[in-house]
Amino acid sequence: MTKIAVMGHGVVGSGTVELFLRNRDMINRKNKLDLELGYILDIRDFPGLPYSDKFTKSIDDILNDDDVKIVAEVMGGLKYAYGFVKQCLEHGKSVVTSNKELVAEKGAELLKTAKEHGCNFLFEASTGGAIPIIRPLHRCLAGNDITAVAGILNGTTNFILTKMINENMQLDEALSLAQRLGYAEKDPTADIEGHDACRKICILSSLVFGRHVYPKWVYCEGITKITAEDVRYADAWGGAVKLIGFVKKLPDGKILPEVRPAFVCRANQLSYIDDVFNGIMVYGDGFDQVMFYGRGAGKFPTASAVLGDIIDAAKMKSTSVSQTWEDSADNSFIEDHLDAEISMYVRMDGAKREDIESIFNTPEFLSCENAPENEIAFITPKMQERLIDEKLGECGGNVLGRIMVLDL
Amino acid sequence: MTKIAVMGHGVVGSGTVELFLRNRDMINRKNKLDLELGYILDIRDFPGLPYSDKFTKSIDDILNDDDVKIVAEVMGGLKYAYGFVKQCLEHGKSVVTSNKELVAEKGAELLKTAKEHGCNFLFEASTGGAIPIIRPLHRCLAGNDITAVAGILNGTTNFILTKMINENMQLDEALSLAQRLGYAEKDPTADIEGHDACRKICILSSLVFGRHVYPKWVYCEGITKITAEDVRYADAWGGAVKLIGFVKKLPDGKILPEVRPAFVCRANQLSYIDDVFNGIMVYGDGFDQVMFYGRGAGKFPTASAVLGDIIDAAKMKSTSVSQTWEDSADNSFIEDHLDAEISMYVRMDGAKREDIESIFNTPEFLSCENAPENEIAFITPKMQERLIDEKLGECGGNVLGRIMVLDL
Repeated sequence: MTKIAVMGHGVVGSGTVELFLRNRDMINRKNKLDLELGYILDIRDFPGLPYSDKFTKSIDDILNDDDVKIVAEVMGGLKYAYGFVKQCLEHGKSVVTSNKELVAEKGAELLKTAKEHGCNFLFEASTGGAIPIIRPLHRCLAGNDITAVAGILNGTTNFILTKMINENMQLDEALSLAQRLGYAEKDPTADIEGHDACRKICILSSLVFGRHVYPKWVYCEGITKITAEDVRYADAWGGAVKLIGFVKKLPDGKILPEVRPAFVCRANQLSYIDDVFNGIMVYGDGFDQVMFYGRGAGKFPTASAVLGDIIDAAKMKSTSVSQTWEDSADNSFIEDHLDAEISMYVRMDGAKREDIESIFNTPEFLSCENAPENEIAFITPKMQERLIDEKLGECGGNVLGRIMVLDL
Repeated sequence: MTKIAVMGHGVVGSGTVELFLRNRDMINRKNKLDLELGYILDIRDFPGLPYSDKFTKSIDDILNDDDVKIVAEVMGGLKYAYGFVKQCLEHGKSVVTSNKELVAEKGAELLKTAKEHGCNFLFEASTGGAIPIIRPLHRCLAGNDITAVAGILNGTTNFILTKMINENMQLDEALSLAQRLGYAEKDPTADIEGHDACRKICILSSLVFGRHVYPKWVYCEGITKITAEDVRYADAWGGAVKLIGFVKKLPDGKILPEVRPAFVCRANQLSYIDDVFNGIMVYGDGFDQVMFYGRGAGKFPTASAVLGDIIDAAKMKSTSVSQTWEDSADNSFIEDHLDAEISMYVRMDGAKREDIESIFNTPEFLSCENAPENEIAFITPKMQERLIDEKLGECGGNVLGRIMVLDL
């Protein structure tokens, strides 16, 4: 018998326990395993549950029970999770986690600890919720040179943008609705400022390119400046505004990871990912492009990914050699986003069309029904972002909106 | 050193060799492997290639070389492939294949042979081309009770339907174009009659539900009766016509696998999968729904999946216990499609609207610009398909088109 322990009995933790108990017999039969629920760690009491006898308030119960081979960390945050996870790994227990902050900040270190102790640190649930992405990236697509990843990695902001697109809402109105429906937290900063998506693109970047990418090194822009007007211009242009986390390999060997809103054209499947769903597009030399779509958050969707990792950890005989990366001493392998060449959508007033035309050398002007008369919107040719900034300064007038065009 | 052998140097075979040689150093480094190309089996000569010295015309070279641990079968068909694969497995060599016919017809037997000889029979490339679907199904989603799978599994027919939808072509016109572009073969039967998609849904059904589903047991309807008129009604209804291979678990424990054209509503992500791309939606109790999207065929996309399996086979220490299924003695676990309850789109002429209304008890009538005056199109309420057939007989007039509504 192999015992599993679950640290944290919040939304994801209770989902993990419930899904495991519901499907345990099928899981054990199909995978020739003998998994049992050993402990649930939580400082709170949960009387009256069918599994109330499994609760403990002491990590030592988990650490000292040799039958516990796999621990699911679903507490979130760094404060307690980091120490608990580290201790479990040092005791040779594999850890699976849904904690994106933990992986984005401490991934390289914890992967090293796991290796030193012959166990595994798995985190399919940390990125894209239910969507299988970590394992496909390092296993199914392992024969390829992966050149870029781009995804809608945050369901809350995608819900807000979808409401702005389909129902013509302004941002604050859509955010209020998301809060009322429980899709956004009271303090929505981590979502709408892009921090959540940033942690996820850090995890994906680290896995794909083999070096830890820390969130502080990644240019991160949220959706707070997006207006209903910008959304309408995106539609007129032939696409949709999405908050995209992406990373791409550059010809000089550096990588460019960023989180920012983007105009996504309708030829790109990501433009059709609506509401709270996530989608992750991967680009490589053999497969060209594949996309993974599903629920990026929620009790059972996240539990599904946690449970998939638990089952995998139970089957693995040694530390994974491909689901890992090295730590990075500095960010010299990361390109400054201002040096990268992009096209940008710009919406201005108070500027002259002929000035814009000559400064930007034939930009693509956009028109949109009911736009104010003195408003001009256009897509710049591709050039360094710092050059776009300079040229916008020369145009006169006010920049009302500016959004990158996704070019992948 | 571990040698790999490639059986067949056609499109996929040459793609596999080229992609392997291009990325070999990266593959070996990232996965801590020492893979080398050992042999390529083909009856033809290929002089002048950088790897021309690797060719052999004798399977014995492969069977008798103990350094060959993994063989990629990319010949296609059953005639030679079945015997060669069987022999390789009996020699304890793992086999990876892109051959959907082989897996759909002989999967259970070859999986058993692999188990008996402590090796693996892997087939990620047989379904969905580059799209990771086999491994996600039995690993990443392993904690779930999977209830249904539905996919666009054939790129040729999806290209044809896309042209009918977006460019208003009739079927024969779109098929000619597909042939000119090399997307359809001279004899397009296997694609347009649904046989190719049928093999793939058999493989997915077998894997998900654990019992071999043979193609002869599956109701299979191609796209040959679809007209530009039907496509326009689908648009008016709010969806798109797609050739769908699907399987679902029924309350009585039986399963219902089918291949047929379907009206797919715009709320379903599959409706946006266009051109030669494939998409596979999976439904389960924890994750709800996830979709996998990518190129379902082609030289390097298929090679990507073959290579992913080669790498996995090299890392696996024993026969997979979850990527397998049992043989089935008969089809008693498969529901007769005529007994299943569905809604259906019907297009008729020569019938009276009031007759249809009373016979079908408030169907949803559809209207479409420029439709002939005596044409009536509607969506039936949900009922057994054999009942729909009966009722259509009572309506009088001619049935010009009838397409299932996908209800997942």
